[in-house]
Amino acid sequence: MNLRFPPVIEPIASNAIITPRNFTELAQQVMEWCDELAGISATEHGISRFYMTREHMTCNQLVQTWMQIAGMTTWVDQAGNVCGRYFGKPIDEYQSEEEIQTLLIGSHLDSIPNAGKYDGILGVLLAIAAIHYLHQEQKVFNYHIDIIGFGDEEGTRFGSTLLGSRAVANTWQPDWWHLEDKEHITLDQAFHDVGFDPAKVELASRAEDNLLGYLEVHIEQGPVLEQHDRALGIVTAIAGARRFQIELTGYAGHSGTVPMDMRQDALVGAANAILTIEQVAKDYSVVATVGRIECKPGAVNVIPGKVIFTMDIRSDYDDMRDMAVKEIQGKVQAICTARNLTSHWNEVHNASAVKCAPWIQELQVDVLEKMDLPPVKLMSGAGHDAMAIAEITDVGMYFVRCKGGVSHHPDELVYVEDVDLALRGLVNTLEAFNEKLEQPK
Amino acid sequence: MNLRFPPVIEPIASNAIITPRNFTELAQQVMEWCDELAGISATEHGISRFYMTREHMTCNQLVQTWMQIAGMTTWVDQAGNVCGRYFGKPIDEYQSEEEIQTLLIGSHLDSIPNAGKYDGILGVLLAIAAIHYLHQEQKVFNYHIDIIGFGDEEGTRFGSTLLGSRAVANTWQPDWWHLEDKEHITLDQAFHDVGFDPAKVELASRAEDNLLGYLEVHIEQGPVLEQHDRALGIVTAIAGARRFQIELTGYAGHSGTVPMDMRQDALVGAANAILTIEQVAKDYSVVATVGRIECKPGAVNVIPGKVIFTMDIRSDYDDMRDMAVKEIQGKVQAICTARNLTSHWNEVHNASAVKCAPWIQELQVDVLEKMDLPPVKLMSGAGHDAMAIAEITDVGMYFVRCKGGVSHHPDELVYVEDVDLALRGLVNTLEAFNEKLEQPK
Repeated sequence: MNLRFPPVIEPIASNAIITPRNFTELAQQVMEWCDELAGISATEHGISRFYMTREHMTCNQLVQTWMQIAGMTTWVDQAGNVCGRYFGKPIDEYQSEEEIQTLLIGSHLDSIPNAGKYDGILGVLLAIAAIHYLHQEQKVFNYHIDIIGFGDEEGTRFGSTLLGSRAVANTWQPDWWHLEDKEHITLDQAFHDVGFDPAKVELASRAEDNLLGYLEVHIEQGPVLEQHDRALGIVTAIAGARRFQIELTGYAGHSGTVPMDMRQDALVGAANAILTIEQVAKDYSVVATVGRIECKPGAVNVIPGKVIFTMDIRSDYDDMRDMAVKEIQGKVQAICTARNLTSHWNEVHNASAVKCAPWIQELQVDVLEKMDLPPVKLMSGAGHDAMAIAEITDVGMYFVRCKGGVSHHPDELVYVEDVDLALRGLVNTLEAFNEKLEQPK
Repeated sequence: MNLRFPPVIEPIASNAIITPRNFTELAQQVMEWCDELAGISATEHGISRFYMTREHMTCNQLVQTWMQIAGMTTWVDQAGNVCGRYFGKPIDEYQSEEEIQTLLIGSHLDSIPNAGKYDGILGVLLAIAAIHYLHQEQKVFNYHIDIIGFGDEEGTRFGSTLLGSRAVANTWQPDWWHLEDKEHITLDQAFHDVGFDPAKVELASRAEDNLLGYLEVHIEQGPVLEQHDRALGIVTAIAGARRFQIELTGYAGHSGTVPMDMRQDALVGAANAILTIEQVAKDYSVVATVGRIECKPGAVNVIPGKVIFTMDIRSDYDDMRDMAVKEIQGKVQAICTARNLTSHWNEVHNASAVKCAPWIQELQVDVLEKMDLPPVKLMSGAGHDAMAIAEITDVGMYFVRCKGGVSHHPDELVYVEDVDLALRGLVNTLEAFNEKLEQPK
């Protein structure tokens, strides 16, 4: 492994004893860091921190400082991701420097407009606190731990998501350079504006590295853990989503003059389709959502002649999701035939599910059971950086309960007690990785 | 009866034999008049003819000319309605001038933007053709026939409908004077702009006149006659409409992270409500339409937290309609309870149904049966000038089949053969009125 990055900064406290803190104090520290990062925003009120902006750079500086205090060597990679390494040592005298593996721990530091304080950020800062703990306990493992705070996951500024982790996974696409933000600044220009060189972005790739795996801690963004009364959950997979735009066409008419049984009402057809989508989603244990609907001509006294609506359907099992899509399409076709409507389906997005590595999940189950936390396994319906990193190494994720399942909203909230447990869980997981490496193969 | 209107014009051919034409030729003439009126439009393409505009005045001039050629004395009333009288004679030596009754025949000459050629217009021009026929046959009845071409029925320019017929029915509201068009010209100003005096509008009232009744011929604007393969239908009533804006509130959430059974999806609730509205409308033999729907926040990957939609519900029986509304409200409440949603109903319009007079309907049935046309009776879901005139006299209506039930569209079409039958039907109806008056009471 080669740190390749000119401005590498040695840890401030690497050879000193850092302020010792217990898990409770560190959890409190993480909450304070989240509050502090919330202040770095393009807007005076709310949190808006986007890729390759002044706020992004300021955030990277601050996070690097915290990493260094925790005992890490830090740098910023050529895609703007802030990185810190907690060096490991060879397993035995026979292991060379090159054979030492690296565990990546990451999440993102960017936000949607008017975001909450924890989405992405919590995972990065929890990892720093975990390293702080290991460092003060003078625990050195048989692998390097690299924390990565990704510069773009939300895709707010340039529309394309996961830019940071895709650079690390070496799946950056050259045509992205032409993407423009609202002010028509291209991604290429945005790199130059903050001193990055687009030509060097592929140096951010970790694809060729000797990786042990990738861990990510993230708020759940849903209500499942809260319903189960659990602070932590083990993610089994990140759902693959398909998205469709569906158009039903009937015949517009006067709301007073066309008898009910002579109508070709596209909206009643769409209503029928929406209920069918819900039922089939339940039958196949997938999630499906109609989030947008438009009805034409859209007058109070005119029977709708055309309705356009979207369907977003997700599952951790691509085959179940695809079977559900097929069933929905068949049933919507039957509805249209019965109602004398025509339908047109346009698929606008199709991504496969990403499985979390079974061996990492097993390790996580062991960790939680030893902590007397009955492990809850759940699927991630939302996308995460782990999706991109799964291209280059095995991935595992913990979810942390968030209040009411609310996220992408200023009301987003996590409990300090849960952060405490997540921190202990993460440290124990790092210990478990170490034990696994020490076992004879 | 006093014609009260200064610029009364005597019929051009009142004492002469006018060009004799048979029904087929007159029907063809009506079609040509419709084409000619279509050319009087505020827009170069399409038909847009609004109240108290230059086009309205030009149209009135042309229609007056046709009325005069047909043998009528004409004038324009103080609300801008073009009027023509075909004078009747006393029933016997004992009847005074004051005792002679007047039958009104009317419909409207204004249009929606980008309208068809026949909505309203056909009824006025058919009546003129009928008078042409009576006049050439030198038939004089025991009642006066006044044709009225109303200046505003659609309400396009000032938002309030039936302005022309409401002036005639003496139900003009003083607060209408402040209504503004898109250019912020008030109704009051619009009157002045084309030489009318708002202070005199009540002189347009026919409420105090000795009226025999009101007849209106109008295109159906629906598909019922076409389905029954009939040119003509007898209208039983004009439906009373109620309109609501309904808001369902649930809870927005991430389309990937909230399991199906934990959702409060306002759009699935609305879909359920829309199907319920359709079913209850069928059960109660009313018509109900959801014509507008808006879903918030309206993103492909967000569960809808709020949906606002409209309901327009109509029936010729107010009690049936109101029972249906109650049933719908109860069922939507149950849907909301089951889905953990809240609902808010806002009634934005409520008009009672208007019955066509049974004695006029009986007379119409006799006429059609004598013509070997099995009478089809149907309800009018759309509003018509007859609704306003029903305040001052008994009303009756004929519907003429229109192709595909299409109206309020440039594709609006009637068949010349149907116009021929409608003309014969109207002439026979006028004869039947006369016979009825001659019968001993």
